[in-house]
Amino acid sequence: MLGEITGLDQSAVTEAQNELNRKMKPQGSLGVLEKIAIQMAGIYGFPVKKVEKRCHIVASADNGVIEEGISSCPIEYTRIVSEAMLNRIAAIGLLTKKLGIDFNLVDIGIADDIPRDYPNLYRKNVKKGTNNFYKEPAMTREECLQAIQTGMDLIKEKGEGIAVFSNGEMGIGNTSTSSAILYSFTKESIDKIVGRGGGLSDSGLIKKKKIIIESCEKYNTFEMDPVDVLAHVGGLDIACMVGMYLGCAKYRKLMLVDGFISAVGALTAYKIEPLVKDFILPTHMSEEPGMKLVLDELGKNAFLNMEMRLGEGTGAVLTYPMIDCAIDIINGMKTPTKVYELFSK
Amino acid sequence: MLGEITGLDQSAVTEAQNELNRKMKPQGSLGVLEKIAIQMAGIYGFPVKKVEKRCHIVASADNGVIEEGISSCPIEYTRIVSEAMLNRIAAIGLLTKKLGIDFNLVDIGIADDIPRDYPNLYRKNVKKGTNNFYKEPAMTREECLQAIQTGMDLIKEKGEGIAVFSNGEMGIGNTSTSSAILYSFTKESIDKIVGRGGGLSDSGLIKKKKIIIESCEKYNTFEMDPVDVLAHVGGLDIACMVGMYLGCAKYRKLMLVDGFISAVGALTAYKIEPLVKDFILPTHMSEEPGMKLVLDELGKNAFLNMEMRLGEGTGAVLTYPMIDCAIDIINGMKTPTKVYELFSK
Repeated sequence: MLGEITGLDQSAVTEAQNELNRKMKPQGSLGVLEKIAIQMAGIYGFPVKKVEKRCHIVASADNGVIEEGISSCPIEYTRIVSEAMLNRIAAIGLLTKKLGIDFNLVDIGIADDIPRDYPNLYRKNVKKGTNNFYKEPAMTREECLQAIQTGMDLIKEKGEGIAVFSNGEMGIGNTSTSSAILYSFTKESIDKIVGRGGGLSDSGLIKKKKIIIESCEKYNTFEMDPVDVLAHVGGLDIACMVGMYLGCAKYRKLMLVDGFISAVGALTAYKIEPLVKDFILPTHMSEEPGMKLVLDELGKNAFLNMEMRLGEGTGAVLTYPMIDCAIDIINGMKTPTKVYELFSK
Repeated sequence: MLGEITGLDQSAVTEAQNELNRKMKPQGSLGVLEKIAIQMAGIYGFPVKKVEKRCHIVASADNGVIEEGISSCPIEYTRIVSEAMLNRIAAIGLLTKKLGIDFNLVDIGIADDIPRDYPNLYRKNVKKGTNNFYKEPAMTREECLQAIQTGMDLIKEKGEGIAVFSNGEMGIGNTSTSSAILYSFTKESIDKIVGRGGGLSDSGLIKKKKIIIESCEKYNTFEMDPVDVLAHVGGLDIACMVGMYLGCAKYRKLMLVDGFISAVGALTAYKIEPLVKDFILPTHMSEEPGMKLVLDELGKNAFLNMEMRLGEGTGAVLTYPMIDCAIDIINGMKTPTKVYELFSK
């Protein structure tokens, strides 16, 4: 499925680092912008090229577990908000339009049919919403692998040239599925993992924790491989994002990580193929408590603290202008010798 | 000098908050983007207008105190890097160009003459670098007030229509002057205030702390009004930025705060006129230890953690695309009723 994957081009990384060290500025003083330029070099080569295509993909799916009453939103929101996004009147639709980003949405498992056609809608429904994982596994391993393959194929299809990707999700209940995956991987204290998602009540929060703990213990997901964890307590949206991350590693594209759910997808992909780490850029520090844990597991930081908790990739897309800035810095800044030559009296 | 200043238009703030609460999303789930939209409403009115002009102003000045050997850079850097900025080959020049921001530089006190002319250079030199504050006050109160007035006038001159401002500075030694101001205001432990600036050595750091403590104690800046603190241990770049903040309060413009030095300027302006707080938006969390203290004093947060320590306003300008996004969100997102009407089957 994956074929041969190699990490960052280390000679390009070294060339980029040397180039940045030659600029007229204290070494490393442009922080994250320098790190982005170096990662771009390691993925797409040195000298660093301009971004030719910005591509955002939202994976939409429903989660059977919400019948346990652990979400603040009704299930039909998934389909309706997906249509609002496709019509550019939901948050991510507006942001991608403003920032010049190609917007795409994959129906990877919405319960409801999307009745209208949209040029940027990918109809790849694996299953009309997962099963309630509190009662039975969310999906079969085969269904899970199909969603992963879909994500990988999308990166191949959309990834011509110097394309940079970002992802987001829409799926009522998916902070529960993400939390269950993270709990399975880490077995950390549940309070460090589970939060209120879109805006859950106190009693809802207690129930959410209980359902996650009991389900993971019942299946013993702690001993499973990452794909089986996904299949038992995950969701099709996350599986599709896992595929996108693996696709970015395979086809050598940068993928911007959004908030908690997107980051759990990145961690799952990393557990399948550790070199995924070289192709991801965490961006937004989600308010969900588990976010810090996921980043620690990945050994990465996030640099935006926007206090956002909407999903859809609304945090990640704010990073695109910074990538353009990082590229202009490495290509445009001059060395002290050059500056002195120009401006000494 | 200031005239009558009023804070945010509270009825516009309420209208903006209500409008955001009506959108199809969990309340407050767009975090900082919502806060920006509300602040824009409070400053420029509701409905929120598009930004018509983005205006960055760098204040450049030299600081006499660097003859004590407390900076990692030579003094001629101030003039040379200022010219590199004006030619758009230093960091902020490249970033403002990429992001479509009007770039301006004020020579408010560079030691060296800028020999060439530039359309976006303001020659407002108050003094050819301040005095070494370790030996005598950095400047007179009159010189300080002149620099403040210059900053205010610049906002008036550049602030036609819906203009949003950001500032930055260039002045070797200005983390020392900023730290001395903050120490004077707070009398906090010096270790919570003073950092390495552009990249100071261990011994340089100890010396920097010693010079700041001894100078502030000698003048007893702890008992002074903010203008006298500025005049004794501050710098002309900071004084000019203080004027910009006061000008933004007077002429009702949003000012993006950059890193530590810019934030100390904001705090000083706030101590002169508390309503300044309504017109500022801290952006970048500087690596200087004092940054947290300044933000606490202002009761504000910063939302970018870019690990940058270059100054020039390189952190602040990264926020402009987010302001555009915030405005599109409040003006473009629809209510659930509208969304259901469009997409219910």
